[in-house]
Amino acid sequence: MEVKVAVIMGSKSDWETMKHACAVLESLGVPFEKRVVSAHRTPDLMFQVAEEAKERGLEVIIAGAGGAAHLPGMVAAKTIVPVIGVPVQSKALNGLDSLLSIVQMPAGIPVATMSIGESGAKNAGLLAAQILAIKDRELNTKIEEMRKAASEAAKESSDQLV
Amino acid sequence: MEVKVAVIMGSKSDWETMKHACAVLESLGVPFEKRVVSAHRTPDLMFQVAEEAKERGLEVIIAGAGGAAHLPGMVAAKTIVPVIGVPVQSKALNGLDSLLSIVQMPAGIPVATMSIGESGAKNAGLLAAQILAIKDRELNTKIEEMRKAASEAAKESSDQLV
Amino acid sequence: MEVKVAVIMGSKSDWETMKHACAVLESLGVPFEKRVVSAHRTPDLMFQVAEEAKERGLEVIIAGAGGAAHLPGMVAAKTIVPVIGVPVQSKALNGLDSLLSIVQMPAGIPVATMSIGESGAKNAGLLAAQILAIKDRELNTKIEEMRKAASEAAKESSDQLV
Amino acid sequence: MEVKVAVIMGSKSDWETMKHACAVLESLGVPFEKRVVSAHRTPDLMFQVAEEAKERGLEVIIAGAGGAAHLPGMVAAKTIVPVIGVPVQSKALNGLDSLLSIVQMPAGIPVATMSIGESGAKNAGLLAAQILAIKDRELNTKIEEMRKAASEAAKESSDQLV
Amino acid sequence: MEVKVAVIMGSKSDWETMKHACAVLESLGVPFEKRVVSAHRTPDLMFQVAEEAKERGLEVIIAGAGGAAHLPGMVAAKTIVPVIGVPVQSKALNGLDSLLSIVQMPAGIPVATMSIGESGAKNAGLLAAQILAIKDRELNTKIEEMRKAASEAAKESSDQLV
Amino acid sequence: MEVKVAVIMGSKSDWETMKHACAVLESLGVPFEKRVVSAHRTPDLMFQVAEEAKERGLEVIIAGAGGAAHLPGMVAAKTIVPVIGVPVQSKALNGLDSLLSIVQMPAGIPVATMSIGESGAKNAGLLAAQILAIKDRELNTKIEEMRKAASEAAKESSDQLV
Amino acid sequence: MEVKVAVIMGSKSDWETMKHACAVLESLGVPFEKRVVSAHRTPDLMFQVAEEAKERGLEVIIAGAGGAAHLPGMVAAKTIVPVIGVPVQSKALNGLDSLLSIVQMPAGIPVATMSIGESGAKNAGLLAAQILAIKDRELNTKIEEMRKAASEAAKESSDQLV
Amino acid sequence: MEVKVAVIMGSKSDWETMKHACAVLESLGVPFEKRVVSAHRTPDLMFQVAEEAKERGLEVIIAGAGGAAHLPGMVAAKTIVPVIGVPVQSKALNGLDSLLSIVQMPAGIPVATMSIGESGAKNAGLLAAQILAIKDRELNTKIEEMRKAASEAAKESSDQLV
Repeated sequence: MEVKVAVIMGSKSDWETMKHACAVLESLGVPFEKRVVSAHRTPDLMFQVAEEAKERGLEVIIAGAGGAAHLPGMVAAKTIVPVIGVPVQSKALNGLDSLLSIVQMPAGIPVATMSIGESGAKNAGLLAAQILAIKDRELNTKIEEMRKAASEAAKESSDQLV
Repeated sequence: MEVKVAVIMGSKSDWETMKHACAVLESLGVPFEKRVVSAHRTPDLMFQVAEEAKERGLEVIIAGAGGAAHLPGMVAAKTIVPVIGVPVQSKALNGLDSLLSIVQMPAGIPVATMSIGESGAKNAGLLAAQILAIKDRELNTKIEEMRKAASEAAKESSDQLV
Repeated sequence: MEVKVAVIMGSKSDWETMKHACAVLESLGVPFEKRVVSAHRTPDLMFQVAEEAKERGLEVIIAGAGGAAHLPGMVAAKTIVPVIGVPVQSKALNGLDSLLSIVQMPAGIPVATMSIGESGAKNAGLLAAQILAIKDRELNTKIEEMRKAASEAAKESSDQLV
Repeated sequence: MEVKVAVIMGSKSDWETMKHACAVLESLGVPFEKRVVSAHRTPDLMFQVAEEAKERGLEVIIAGAGGAAHLPGMVAAKTIVPVIGVPVQSKALNGLDSLLSIVQMPAGIPVATMSIGESGAKNAGLLAAQILAIKDRELNTKIEEMRKAASEAAKESSDQLV
Repeated sequence: MEVKVAVIMGSKSDWETMKHACAVLESLGVPFEKRVVSAHRTPDLMFQVAEEAKERGLEVIIAGAGGAAHLPGMVAAKTIVPVIGVPVQSKALNGLDSLLSIVQMPAGIPVATMSIGESGAKNAGLLAAQILAIKDRELNTKIEEMRKAASEAAKESSDQLV
Repeated sequence: MEVKVAVIMGSKSDWETMKHACAVLESLGVPFEKRVVSAHRTPDLMFQVAEEAKERGLEVIIAGAGGAAHLPGMVAAKTIVPVIGVPVQSKALNGLDSLLSIVQMPAGIPVATMSIGESGAKNAGLLAAQILAIKDRELNTKIEEMRKAASEAAKESSDQLV
Repeated sequence: MEVKVAVIMGSKSDWETMKHACAVLESLGVPFEKRVVSAHRTPDLMFQVAEEAKERGLEVIIAGAGGAAHLPGMVAAKTIVPVIGVPVQSKALNGLDSLLSIVQMPAGIPVATMSIGESGAKNAGLLAAQILAIKDRELNTKIEEMRKAASEAAKESSDQLV
Repeated sequence: MEVKVAVIMGSKSDWETMKHACAVLESLGVPFEKRVVSAHRTPDLMFQVAEEAKERGLEVIIAGAGGAAHLPGMVAAKTIVPVIGVPVQSKALNGLDSLLSIVQMPAGIPVATMSIGESGAKNAGLLAAQILAIKDRELNTKIEEMRKAASEAAKESSDQLV
């Protein structure tokens, strides 16, 4: 099946966070690829990945990064494929730097920013799926079922408050 | 033409910010509707708007709010139509509260968060268009032309540095 | 005895914090119920819980949540039963996000916000009791005794500064 | 009619904020008194006000202060009448200092903290009324009507988005 | 020897921090007393301690507290004996709340605020000594010797950079 | 009369803030001198001022600075005369940078830090006077009278809440 | 004379800040060029400017940007010519976002970050000159004279404290 | 070989961070010296080190410090040799205090500020080398090779995302 989502991250150490995006995509049957693409160490590769995205048929790019976190914004500057940014929790500032660097984009170049860390990575996978589901009834149903299951689990967890 | 994007906001006073989202949609020819929907003053209306979104054919919802800013997240909890959140600049905390309330969503319910204020509203309009453009070649071209124009304007502005 | 206080929380993981609210209520003999009610995973249940609160005889609702933390504010939007909000300490931002999302409510919908984490949960239990004690002389006395005991304990602890 | 709510503030300059609490109480017909009581300039008066609150029949105290903002917490330490705290917007730190000084109370002494500034003052008036309304059916109706009016106003304001 | 410095703290748990103030005073031979005095749990004791300070011959009061941290400011409001405040590191906000609650005092009531945590406690002991040393030549010499020793230690530590 | 307090500041533009320290000293009859001493532009002068302080009979130094605000800490490093630091409100960060740069001193070199801006400057003047008053009964009385007047003014201001 | 310093900025609106860098370079006789180069609107131009820097003989690049502020870091990723970053004061967050986005670079790609706004721009000009002065005795002298003048001005400004 | 870079730090405990600057310099063959120089405990030594820097042939100074972190700015005030500042991660505020104290320098005295902690120390070593490489073709090549290796490592790490 054709890959529609690319999950990229600034460094191998971001994988602990970004694997949660991949897990969601996998559980929903969305074909994806994953790759280390560093804005600062491999800037040319980053531009190439962004430039080829449209013609390769990518429909959403998920980009995770921490600290100065330029990856999501720079990819977004080089393609009009929607980019979802995941702020990876940083060591000193707990991801507040990652968050601001990703979300405070200037007018013209949006990055769909998620929450800091693991929950943000999961939501990146989900949002990518929700975007694809606009034109995919089957995926739509899968996401709704996933939500229903989460809802049931929440309700049942009341019994465990002891 | 069928409305594909709904622009909602928590209060009339958010219009000064959110009108920039509408202006971008308009300039790209994306049909949209706009409406005050308050999470706190009209919670039932909010739920209704979110619940009907899919069947009404909405493909993206843009929601702007300030302060506690529950609107984007609550709408996202009631529909799987992608929700773009715009943190409106608040009085005391300059929108840092709006930003955190919108972006720090728990796993399961993503909100595509934009930057604080006017630039975020513009980008919300743009991101909505980029999402629609995945399956709309014509819109795709319009966005690329808009970018090209912005790029040219940036280059030419060097002459004005005096 | 009729339940007068409901303790609700956004997720089972909030129980580690919110159990301290329950412990205070228990030690003061205030009848309460506890439940997981998620603003994002079970929004309809949340609205139902809020809507039925008044007629069920609830006099105070304690709601704990972390991160975007929409639960207290959304419950408050659906009932005029006083809502006490407890910001649960979040992973990346240590509960600053929870605090701002709960406390920065717009005019019209108050949430009585407590401090972040365990001390906030204890105080939520206490404030609920103080509100009930306005019309309950016996409970009034119990709270005053609890305070006196805390005061004595503080005074005696000086001997332990070694 | 007997005064049930005291609105106190740390300085005359807080009146610009705290008058909004009084306006809400007035519009709901809740009898109240207002007074400058400074934690730092009139500490003895503050203790006296707090100590006499219960016997004077006060059922709620609203306390507004800015900066170090010790008033709400110190009053709460001297009475078990519920205390609502309003963080007044400060000059340098925009009320973040006021908010943290009021909300971060230790276990044992709760302060029901509102949002920073004018909206917080309004909500303090409202929360006081909601607490009184637990045992006052008429006041209950008035608050519900006030909410309904706000809801209608919000809905109608959509027409003004131009 | 007459006690000239009182070291007070809001809770027994602050001792881990405040013992460092006592250790400095001890090493400089400054007579002091230490005590748990809680602004919120023992407000009357706090006022009494502050009121009696001058007549008891206290020349400096060191007060440590965390979170809302009202102790230093309230003591300062009740005496003109100089008060040194030590912000104890808090759990959720790492002492930023303690710092702002202590330092942001309104005009009229100064608190000499130290850095957060252990270093602040040490410096509180030192500043108390420096204040006493204005009129105490012997103490003056001791402080200068302590500084000289610290200076030598710093210089020698270069050899350990391996 | 011999000068006992030096008021120094990092730049002429700090005078708008620091003049409030001088006004308090003047109104209490405390002899003082005032001077621009820049840590960064006149480092040698700064060291000289600090080194000569003791022998010149200075008993307290008040130092105001904004931004990186090294003046108070560096003066404190060169003398054991007590140093009071006033964080001047900075342009971009509103004095949060000034506050942290002044207050977060390492163990060994205390700076008695005041609140940000005008109120901090006033309090610096007051704290200096309170320190001198330890051995000056007359000054003691003047400060107490100043406090009493402030207390009266606060009480009377209740009548102006309209 | 050959251009040795390039002053680039993300947008024409940054000129109000960055002109202060140019003014310093001009007053020291350092030849420079200035240009709008937007990381997001003209990413290819940005890469080209960075790639050609070394061969064109540029010895320092000064880059100013606000908000997400990717320009300095991305230029630094594409050249080993030293890059000085100036955080331009942003609207909502006052430049804290600009600062963190510029300074929190990952290991491998340094950006020499200056303070926020006008003072940072001036210092960028100065630091560029200081770097060039390592091998330029004449420039060295000019900078020392500039410092001496600033020192004299600071000393003389004491007379104006009235 | 003549020492061109001095690595200084405020305390022995900063070595855990600053050793990473030394490691980079070593791996690039840049001769350096390292030393504890405390702004607060050894201010005269600090001034001497700064004053002698130029004549001793130092071309760059790297200064690391935490908390109030005055070392980099004060050294910069005493020499026009370029100073690179490394904010060491502090205990309570995670280095945000160190960062602001170092970076927010006033106009006239620049400090080239790096990111907080280990990555900042590494980058300080690199930036020092990049500055020296302006006039050193061999060093230039070494830095470019180091970058190339990092780039290759980043690319290859994609295979390890499992």
